[in-house]
Amino acid sequence: MNNPVQLPFLERASRKFLDEWHEYAVSIPLKAPKFLNLEGDTCNYFHMVEQGSVRVYICNDLGKEITLYKLAEGESCLLTAFSILSQTPFPAYSRLESGGRLISVPAPIFRDWINRYEEWRHFLFSLLSGRVQEILGKLESLAFLRVDERVAEYLLRCVQQNKKQVRITHSQLAQELGTAREVVSRILKSFERSRLIALSRGHITILNSRGLSRFAPAARN
Amino acid sequence: MNNPVQLPFLERASRKFLDEWHEYAVSIPLKAPKFLNLEGDTCNYFHMVEQGSVRVYICNDLGKEITLYKLAEGESCLLTAFSILSQTPFPAYSRLESGGRLISVPAPIFRDWINRYEEWRHFLFSLLSGRVQEILGKLESLAFLRVDERVAEYLLRCVQQNKKQVRITHSQLAQELGTAREVVSRILKSFERSRLIALSRGHITILNSRGLSRFAPAARN
Repeated sequence: MNNPVQLPFLERASRKFLDEWHEYAVSIPLKAPKFLNLEGDTCNYFHMVEQGSVRVYICNDLGKEITLYKLAEGESCLLTAFSILSQTPFPAYSRLESGGRLISVPAPIFRDWINRYEEWRHFLFSLLSGRVQEILGKLESLAFLRVDERVAEYLLRCVQQNKKQVRITHSQLAQELGTAREVVSRILKSFERSRLIALSRGHITILNSRGLSRFAPAARN
Repeated sequence: MNNPVQLPFLERASRKFLDEWHEYAVSIPLKAPKFLNLEGDTCNYFHMVEQGSVRVYICNDLGKEITLYKLAEGESCLLTAFSILSQTPFPAYSRLESGGRLISVPAPIFRDWINRYEEWRHFLFSLLSGRVQEILGKLESLAFLRVDERVAEYLLRCVQQNKKQVRITHSQLAQELGTAREVVSRILKSFERSRLIALSRGHITILNSRGLSRFAPAARN
């Protein structure tokens, strides 16, 4: 029917599963930005990111947001899986932010595969377990870190991924960390005054990651 | 071999599953308090609470804690399930706090049942989905609420459960909410001065829940 990208787990999948995969897993082109699920939605499809990135976040009545996790290529959404499996409404927002192309599997087929194919269950549980870890990490940093520590940790994670120049606005960074733009701006400016970073429109350049790590408790250990 | 309590889902389970359930699900008496899993542990057993309550929490280097969720009778632990399914270390602490008696299923049997029995998968996914909701609720309150709002929401949840007298110490409440005991004490005292609550040793009595709800954004909507 269509030819979605070859996910690594498919190499070890049974012939029978592969036949159904090619029958039901549809590769869909989409134009970012686009909401995939809103809070309260019934999830009729299970998605995997084929190209692009998806942000999953929660949001309060005042429009304040916090990112739960981001999905890169080959990844998929814990909350969608749970909503489909437990037949409960989607509890967050998920939005295609760049890209994009999704592999989409109808919810009844997704449930049926969970019942019938060990390779699918195995693939899925390892993917979703990473998401659980990410949500716990987020919770930990909200509970235990000050906002300046959270900003420093975010920037140091970018350095670890070899991104010394981070393309993000102050208000996007605030949404990542679940705080207000003004707070993030004040902290970034103080980091700039200490020559740890340089700020330019839509970019943060990290100048001194050793200096930044003094603000990041996890990096200190 | 043994006779663990009759969980409701067992009433609709197949004869075949019931036979294995009675063979492998062992009911174990334990003396609270007792740690069931520490951070980094390999989970060799999947537990369900038969009698008592289990607290699952994360903890930082300084000993500050935040409760992720509590398991009452018949409930079981999302993080244990994920650790077993994805064969990753347990990412938190779980502790039997009162009770207790656990139904315990060895990890290989747990995985095997996921593969073979739809009734087990169904039971499990609905249980675990509730835990995901709880973790998200916790994250939401950490991200979006001030500590006084979190204290008010906690107390109002107790009122909803018909507990107008809450048996909890200031330091236990701080652990629930991921903050410091001093902060909780200061807030409780200010609520007491406003005659919203009365404080006594190990107890908080809620006097005016309507007044408290002015502090709780969710209750205000």
